[in-house]
Amino acid sequence: MNMEGLWYKECSQGRRFIIKITPGENLTTRLLQFAHLADVRYAMIVSALGSVKNVKLRGIKTGAKLPITTPRITIHEIEGPLELLGLQGNIVPGEDDLLDCHFHIMMSKSSGEVVGGHLYDAQVFATCEIVLTELSVEGVERHVSKMGGIPTLYIDEGGA
Amino acid sequence: MNMEGLWYKECSQGRRFIIKITPGENLTTRLLQFAHLADVRYAMIVSALGSVKNVKLRGIKTGAKLPITTPRITIHEIEGPLELLGLQGNIVPGEDDLLDCHFHIMMSKSSGEVVGGHLYDAQVFATCEIVLTELSVEGVERHVSKMGGIPTLYIDEGGA
Amino acid sequence: MNMEGLWYKECSQGRRFIIKITPGENLTTRLLQFAHLADVRYAMIVSALGSVKNVKLRGIKTGAKLPITTPRITIHEIEGPLELLGLQGNIVPGEDDLLDCHFHIMMSKSSGEVVGGHLYDAQVFATCEIVLTELSVEGVERHVSKMGGIPTLYIDEGGA
Repeated sequence: MNMEGLWYKECSQGRRFIIKITPGENLTTRLLQFAHLADVRYAMIVSALGSVKNVKLRGIKTGAKLPITTPRITIHEIEGPLELLGLQGNIVPGEDDLLDCHFHIMMSKSSGEVVGGHLYDAQVFATCEIVLTELSVEGVERHVSKMGGIPTLYIDEGGA
Repeated sequence: MNMEGLWYKECSQGRRFIIKITPGENLTTRLLQFAHLADVRYAMIVSALGSVKNVKLRGIKTGAKLPITTPRITIHEIEGPLELLGLQGNIVPGEDDLLDCHFHIMMSKSSGEVVGGHLYDAQVFATCEIVLTELSVEGVERHVSKMGGIPTLYIDEGGA
Repeated sequence: MNMEGLWYKECSQGRRFIIKITPGENLTTRLLQFAHLADVRYAMIVSALGSVKNVKLRGIKTGAKLPITTPRITIHEIEGPLELLGLQGNIVPGEDDLLDCHFHIMMSKSSGEVVGGHLYDAQVFATCEIVLTELSVEGVERHVSKMGGIPTLYIDEGGA
């Protein structure tokens, strides 16, 4: 269904998984491998905590216009370790029907200050505990938005 | 049910929706319109990410006492754009049975620093992807707490 | 099931609860008492917002190695009050089969800056609204990891 400025689609909840990723592992690589192994095509993170190190993330430059292009972003590499305070995101098929993930991360520094952004890469430090829910839905795909400059969800108009 | 200092009620999970809000749209206005259109009376945000701009939010002054009153809060307006790292909150009927939402937002600046607070208003920048779950529950309402100075949930003692 | 660097287990969703904790109450103490009262053994936070004060939390020192030991952490006590922007975490039985919780907290200061970390203690300021989901799962326990220095989830290899 769509209304002006908003698209939505009802989905049903599929399987739910408790996941633990061990020290030194790459967070996004392992989650995508898990999705392939468990045959999960649509999923979202419901809960995530632990600690991470060697994080690479993206911010958007203040005053930037659309579309989001390389000169309009900032890239940060943070060695850490940091407490992992949250991970929001979803796994949805992208171009060529390949699984693709979109995660935003929040972490605290030694000082208690919280940093975060669009996640490229992070390694697990001491542990990482995730609860992930599979979504059963059709007609949702991730494609690059020319207007936005970034891959985002597209929801078709048919069906539920 | 209630115990000293804590009230709780079992609720069952209703429909689940994947939502995409497009650039320039007001986040809270569109979510409330969606709730009206889809006839959702009780819901909570399970996942939210994307980017936002022109955000207006509230903080509480250090050392403030209850109730929360205008001199005890700070209001921030942030032009951004910023990465949207999280949105926590619920939609519950308030006074006069009108739908009301209570959202707290987390966003990262260009520097990677995270800012946030009680959300008044935000516009979507490049995209906004939300998963929202309807809750089936009775006897939960939002009313202004005289002690707290803010609208909050009230849970009745009867039933489940 | 396990793959290199990642363990996972399917779980089914149990009861869901809307919880309100009142001003002055200790967040973690009350949540554990609730879990005992409602006979919840496995659960995770799905949504949490409100405001808190007198927060005690932990960060990890920059450059720290594993295992996480006392000299490698920092402890912060923040009087606040602060807006509660998020709480991620789970309740899982630990040693001696006693319920144990693992929560990470995110809060905003008067300035809008977000601080957070591994939660030891926090008191509710004006209100705290939580949605918690019970998980039905077997073979998941929390034990201290000698490698990591912290209690973490262990997932057995049998069953689902």
